[in-house]
Amino acid sequence: MQIDLNADLGESFGRWTLGDDDAMLEVVTSANVACGFHAGDPSVLRHSCEQAAAQGVAIGAQVGYRDLPGFGRRFIDVAPAELTADVIYQIGALEGFARVAGTRVRYVKPHGALYNAIVHHEAQAAAVVEAVLAYDRTLPVMGLPGSVWLRLAQEAGLTTVGEAFADRAYTPEGTLVSRREPGAVLHDPAEIARRCVRIATKGEVVAVDGTVVAAPAGSLCVHGDSPGAVEIARQVRAGLDEAGVELTPFVGEAT
Amino acid sequence: MQIDLNADLGESFGRWTLGDDDAMLEVVTSANVACGFHAGDPSVLRHSCEQAAAQGVAIGAQVGYRDLPGFGRRFIDVAPAELTADVIYQIGALEGFARVAGTRVRYVKPHGALYNAIVHHEAQAAAVVEAVLAYDRTLPVMGLPGSVWLRLAQEAGLTTVGEAFADRAYTPEGTLVSRREPGAVLHDPAEIARRCVRIATKGEVVAVDGTVVAAPAGSLCVHGDSPGAVEIARQVRAGLDEAGVELTPFVGEAT
Amino acid sequence: MQIDLNADLGESFGRWTLGDDDAMLEVVTSANVACGFHAGDPSVLRHSCEQAAAQGVAIGAQVGYRDLPGFGRRFIDVAPAELTADVIYQIGALEGFARVAGTRVRYVKPHGALYNAIVHHEAQAAAVVEAVLAYDRTLPVMGLPGSVWLRLAQEAGLTTVGEAFADRAYTPEGTLVSRREPGAVLHDPAEIARRCVRIATKGEVVAVDGTVVAAPAGSLCVHGDSPGAVEIARQVRAGLDEAGVELTPFVGEAT
Amino acid sequence: MQIDLNADLGESFGRWTLGDDDAMLEVVTSANVACGFHAGDPSVLRHSCEQAAAQGVAIGAQVGYRDLPGFGRRFIDVAPAELTADVIYQIGALEGFARVAGTRVRYVKPHGALYNAIVHHEAQAAAVVEAVLAYDRTLPVMGLPGSVWLRLAQEAGLTTVGEAFADRAYTPEGTLVSRREPGAVLHDPAEIARRCVRIATKGEVVAVDGTVVAAPAGSLCVHGDSPGAVEIARQVRAGLDEAGVELTPFVGEAT
Repeated sequence: MQIDLNADLGESFGRWTLGDDDAMLEVVTSANVACGFHAGDPSVLRHSCEQAAAQGVAIGAQVGYRDLPGFGRRFIDVAPAELTADVIYQIGALEGFARVAGTRVRYVKPHGALYNAIVHHEAQAAAVVEAVLAYDRTLPVMGLPGSVWLRLAQEAGLTTVGEAFADRAYTPEGTLVSRREPGAVLHDPAEIARRCVRIATKGEVVAVDGTVVAAPAGSLCVHGDSPGAVEIARQVRAGLDEAGVELTPFVGEAT
Repeated sequence: MQIDLNADLGESFGRWTLGDDDAMLEVVTSANVACGFHAGDPSVLRHSCEQAAAQGVAIGAQVGYRDLPGFGRRFIDVAPAELTADVIYQIGALEGFARVAGTRVRYVKPHGALYNAIVHHEAQAAAVVEAVLAYDRTLPVMGLPGSVWLRLAQEAGLTTVGEAFADRAYTPEGTLVSRREPGAVLHDPAEIARRCVRIATKGEVVAVDGTVVAAPAGSLCVHGDSPGAVEIARQVRAGLDEAGVELTPFVGEAT
Repeated sequence: MQIDLNADLGESFGRWTLGDDDAMLEVVTSANVACGFHAGDPSVLRHSCEQAAAQGVAIGAQVGYRDLPGFGRRFIDVAPAELTADVIYQIGALEGFARVAGTRVRYVKPHGALYNAIVHHEAQAAAVVEAVLAYDRTLPVMGLPGSVWLRLAQEAGLTTVGEAFADRAYTPEGTLVSRREPGAVLHDPAEIARRCVRIATKGEVVAVDGTVVAAPAGSLCVHGDSPGAVEIARQVRAGLDEAGVELTPFVGEAT
Repeated sequence: MQIDLNADLGESFGRWTLGDDDAMLEVVTSANVACGFHAGDPSVLRHSCEQAAAQGVAIGAQVGYRDLPGFGRRFIDVAPAELTADVIYQIGALEGFARVAGTRVRYVKPHGALYNAIVHHEAQAAAVVEAVLAYDRTLPVMGLPGSVWLRLAQEAGLTTVGEAFADRAYTPEGTLVSRREPGAVLHDPAEIARRCVRIATKGEVVAVDGTVVAAPAGSLCVHGDSPGAVEIARQVRAGLDEAGVELTPFVGEAT
């Protein structure tokens, strides 16, 4: 049994620090590194890529809307052709640092409001697919199982990886409970770790109503910037280790 | 006899258009394409790279300070390590579009205040050299003959290309007359074309005092955004053609 | 008979020039000056305010989304409290230049995608109203007649000014024909001028199906940056003059 | 005996938090609030101004270079006329929030690299003076005693306030020890508090060589974002209270 463990990194900017990247890199197997549009200045990105490469962690391009003040968390009605260009720009920029670090960008995972938008937004989902196709059609893409984004990517011949969320509650339909609902986000590291083991070993999760729903996942997402993020990630890793689940980048060796 | 003809392109941004890139691409052999830090949004850069590739024009990364409001024309006292990261980011981002267009970034030419700063500024010059070395030590770099930038690049083993300026007056010492002096910029297309032919064929130029000074150049720079830019570039090209000088990218075939 | 004539100004940015502000200021009575979020750097805004003040043209704050690459033309799902703060910031910044020019910001007119969004978007419309109320409840606001924006502003006790568009076709329902439809934008200066006279003198316009619909307006909007913009504006002004319509800022004396 | 205690506030930006503004506002009497060019988004600035007004803390405009990635800490060779416009824009924007909070901008204090540049840089110092003169010649300005900035401001008829630094070592000449030297920054809260009392009560400070030098100051600057910043500020305040020094904004009542 194997699974990938991914987290967002490289989200500091200039004077402003966010998350504890070095600590997270000791835990995860894939790093969704910001690309400068929602977070991450070039110096931060270089450091993140070099640390990831040194740890054997796979580097993914965490592409987002061009919106530093909103941290990429606000939907922007970007025209598809512009979004395609924005995504190519971001992948290319991050690839520069991956290259300098002796490795490559190994996958693409949209961030924040873009991630959420392309669960349903056909035109923007297609625009991001188009960017990956144009840039490198061998690059895998990561996202929400069942999203328009992964469906279009698959139809276009891209390798897709669905992810499950370590610290989020699920509905009986297998979707995420909205953050506006009470109990949407879990905080107990031990419980989160147990859920991750079940997802990794059985491909299932207990929903908020107690029913067991399918949650097949090629990767588990842990959050990098919440309070206690590092501790949760460590316990998830420890739990998976103990259960005999091998943690490995879904894309194979990182370097 | 051969020479390269380069101009700045891709300097529009969003709603704002600058220069006539499509017209210039029919004239030049190398395009210094902006990388988004001083000008050029991703959609503009994609278009510029695709047009350049289609015309067989070599794409250079025109890297600059991160300063859209100042168009990269204001010196910024960036720390060397940050400047190195900024330059890698820009080359990588442009490489994404070159790649999508079926080609590659073929050289690096700093822009504006950075171009001027590294004529003398050792630490910033070294930082840009460091970026090119880290990214790809086979990438040629372009700049002012005699600059610290080209000297350090050469010492580091990079291929360097000195350029001459089609529309600028020269001092008897072979340096450019400051723009603050009267007559620093030439406007007569025919005169500019004649000077270019002399630089290309004899490696010399007539200085403001009438003396003839050496001006060896691997490339001639024509401006892309001044009034009459396209007309000047066309006459330069016509003059060189007539004199039997072959116009060709200094880096060989572009694609 | 009186009417106000307004146009967008101050939309250049750094090296990039847009529109011919000085020429437009000789024609209009109200200038919607950008505030730096979608266009307009501080030097541009200062110049625009000083020229407007010198010409006796009323200065309005043309507030928009924070989106230079998109020129404020892309809907952004900004949280209402953030939008309120963004609008206060913009009004205050422009007020600084109005003050230095010896005058004041006289009204607020949203720009681009924000203008269009708050025709229907209750939460964003309320957020902009909230900003004006907090900043100065005596400031009039301008917008589309029938919009949620003007309705909420009126309910909150603000002075509202509905505007008509000089160069846009109208539906039989009195709304604007979508720009995606053929014939949505008029280009003949003489025809545009005749329509403006009819709006100003009779409060009515001929719709695309030939019917006459009501178009009451306290201000006529002419575009400042399209080809022929200045010529159209001049003919509109000449037509209104000839018809005996006095052109005057709706807010009274500008200084 | 009276003195003012000032600190930088409002330096968070979007997702990124910096400093503990609410805690600092319980200690200081003057808040140098960022204006959005080096830090501070509109929502942050609104909150800072409202909290400052609620606490009776005077609001100063902490104006800086337009450089979010560099946090305003990199010298930028801005042309004087542009710098003047940049500063007016920032003061105006902050004034909007001060006004909404029921108060006003009470003084201007440059930030970071601009602060340091105008200690010596005549043209930029004059440009900032020009901005304050144009905006409101009754606004006091704060800076380093002996700087070109304060000299030009005084010559122009502005009210000037020299400040001393609570946690910085002084040379025998009464200037600050460079941050590159060991011991340039003090960390012991008790020692810092004792020095502040001496500055406030006797206008003098012990230099690094043990000599006593004059350090007259209308305000004491405490840092807002270093580790332990709040604790240092509290001990400074407690020490001054105990020594019978009244802490009060130099500009009188804040509201």
